[in-house]
Amino acid sequence: MPELRKDPVLGRWVIISTERAKRPKDFESTPETKKTNPKECPFCPGNEGATPPEIFAIRTNNGSPNTPGWTLRVIPNKFPALRIEGEINRRGEGIYDHMNGIGAHEVIIETAEHNLDLADMEPGRFEDVIHAYQQRVLDLRKDERLRYVMIFKNFGSAAGASLEHTHSQLIATPVIPKRVTEEMDGAKRYFEYRERCIFCDIVVQETKTRKRLVVENNSFILICPFAPRFPFECWILPRNHRSNFEDATAEELKDLSSILKDCLMRLKKALNTPPYNYIIHSAPITVRGVDFYHYHLEIIPVLTHIAGFEWGTGFYINPTGPEDSAAYLKNII
Amino acid sequence: MPELRKDPVLGRWVIISTERAKRPKDFESTPETKKTNPKECPFCPGNEGATPPEIFAIRTNNGSPNTPGWTLRVIPNKFPALRIEGEINRRGEGIYDHMNGIGAHEVIIETAEHNLDLADMEPGRFEDVIHAYQQRVLDLRKDERLRYVMIFKNFGSAAGASLEHTHSQLIATPVIPKRVTEEMDGAKRYFEYRERCIFCDIVVQETKTRKRLVVENNSFILICPFAPRFPFECWILPRNHRSNFEDATAEELKDLSSILKDCLMRLKKALNTPPYNYIIHSAPITVRGVDFYHYHLEIIPVLTHIAGFEWGTGFYINPTGPEDSAAYLKNII
Repeated sequence: MPELRKDPVLGRWVIISTERAKRPKDFESTPETKKTNPKECPFCPGNEGATPPEIFAIRTNNGSPNTPGWTLRVIPNKFPALRIEGEINRRGEGIYDHMNGIGAHEVIIETAEHNLDLADMEPGRFEDVIHAYQQRVLDLRKDERLRYVMIFKNFGSAAGASLEHTHSQLIATPVIPKRVTEEMDGAKRYFEYRERCIFCDIVVQETKTRKRLVVENNSFILICPFAPRFPFECWILPRNHRSNFEDATAEELKDLSSILKDCLMRLKKALNTPPYNYIIHSAPITVRGVDFYHYHLEIIPVLTHIAGFEWGTGFYINPTGPEDSAAYLKNII
Repeated sequence: MPELRKDPVLGRWVIISTERAKRPKDFESTPETKKTNPKECPFCPGNEGATPPEIFAIRTNNGSPNTPGWTLRVIPNKFPALRIEGEINRRGEGIYDHMNGIGAHEVIIETAEHNLDLADMEPGRFEDVIHAYQQRVLDLRKDERLRYVMIFKNFGSAAGASLEHTHSQLIATPVIPKRVTEEMDGAKRYFEYRERCIFCDIVVQETKTRKRLVVENNSFILICPFAPRFPFECWILPRNHRSNFEDATAEELKDLSSILKDCLMRLKKALNTPPYNYIIHSAPITVRGVDFYHYHLEIIPVLTHIAGFEWGTGFYINPTGPEDSAAYLKNII
């Protein structure tokens, strides 16, 4: 059973993942994304038996679950960071706190095609990916033990992907993550002072000045944020106020998939297929429809290393200003 | 002039470093630590002219500054993230805040020997390194524009080192970094509740249970912390309460250098010379002698990648529990 432990000073939770237990020799070479032959890839059609049974799938052929014929498939992670079965069981150990690693860890296999890059996926299939994200959150929010559902994608080994067949992940946690609490608290303080959502104000200012705006559509803007941690960091913000991703309308999901695909294509061309992470930041599933917080996506190309200064301070040193990043990305055709 | 910008939601500062300005093509290959011939190494004796003039040095030959004969040398960073000259000049831009990148960015060249690993340095020279750290903080705290001095080391390219000749760095900032404020606030809350320093309590519990204790000496303990973000993460804590590193006694500095050297040797043997970062966490130079906070060192071997889940949540998934890490490190001779 994985275990959740809390740092007693910072209140930061870590997952001690016994499913992935590693000894010193396991670290001797840097982990690379495994190059696999489609015949041996657990995410390829025909190998459905190599994964735990599917939770959700999109099929065009009316076939049975866990057989080929799907275009998108959601499965539990075979080596989950958190497990769905069991009790939370919070307990102390002297001054420390821990609890069982209850939660969910799922993999969204975005396509049946082994070598397809998400950036090159056809628009209809890309919409399916975003739709699947929403369906999974709507399902998991029925589980009363869970407080947060985080959807994210790691692309490339430097960004933490261990399998090359394109996929996203979802982790649902029994506590609200520290970073989410910080964002919610920061947004709430701004709202208390100005009676406006800070993300709505960001949308207004960025749409007006346009100097960090890369591209926009009916429902979303894509910007390089004012204080980015990383070169070419991008944020996608809904124009209209909405706190929870899972409450987005069908039209919004369509526009989100279109602007996210556009963003990934621009990064791919500008930076020669960089490793990247993207993360959907949403209000917790237990806190819906709030006026001070606004869901959004953060896309981080992995181009630099995190070093001692960043670890110690939480400050980031970024060698590329967002106005420059936005200008480069805007000019990509 | 570098610029400091504040994220309006999280209050996190970033440094937009114009001295190191980078365009997309600069990122096309992953930066590696430069392998340099000692003749061309700016940190080697004989090449003192290749660096800005020295700030501090330890010489055995009574030679002039910026000439060979030194065993340790401190210089301003040639491409500083923050600059010592100028006014802070805080200003707004709509809803955003920025200020000039005032501060200090120095390099501590730990040895004149190009190929010496800090872990293998003789004890007297290692003490000089720790002594130099303290001297630089004592000097910089006279500058009233500065609020924090962060001392850290990046070893290996994956940990952010760009030159192979062993060195540490120091960055002094005009604001107290978010991570430091969070640690101070967390420790203060604990103190208000229990009237004891949380770090003192950690020392008591870890010394008693011994299951995460790697090694100890008269003044310090070396542990794998209860909720580590990373495999083989290590912390060095002073046994006696002290909030500021720069106030450590000569005897404490000697013991600190001895236990830090021991830690680096154990990590080197256990993990085959891993890239690593270490960071001195101290109370700010403007906040001295507080009863609720306790300076300490954090040592992080770089063995895993930070991925989307960590970026989104502030949660870390760690595949090696600290009890296991401590057991491995304890058994290294």
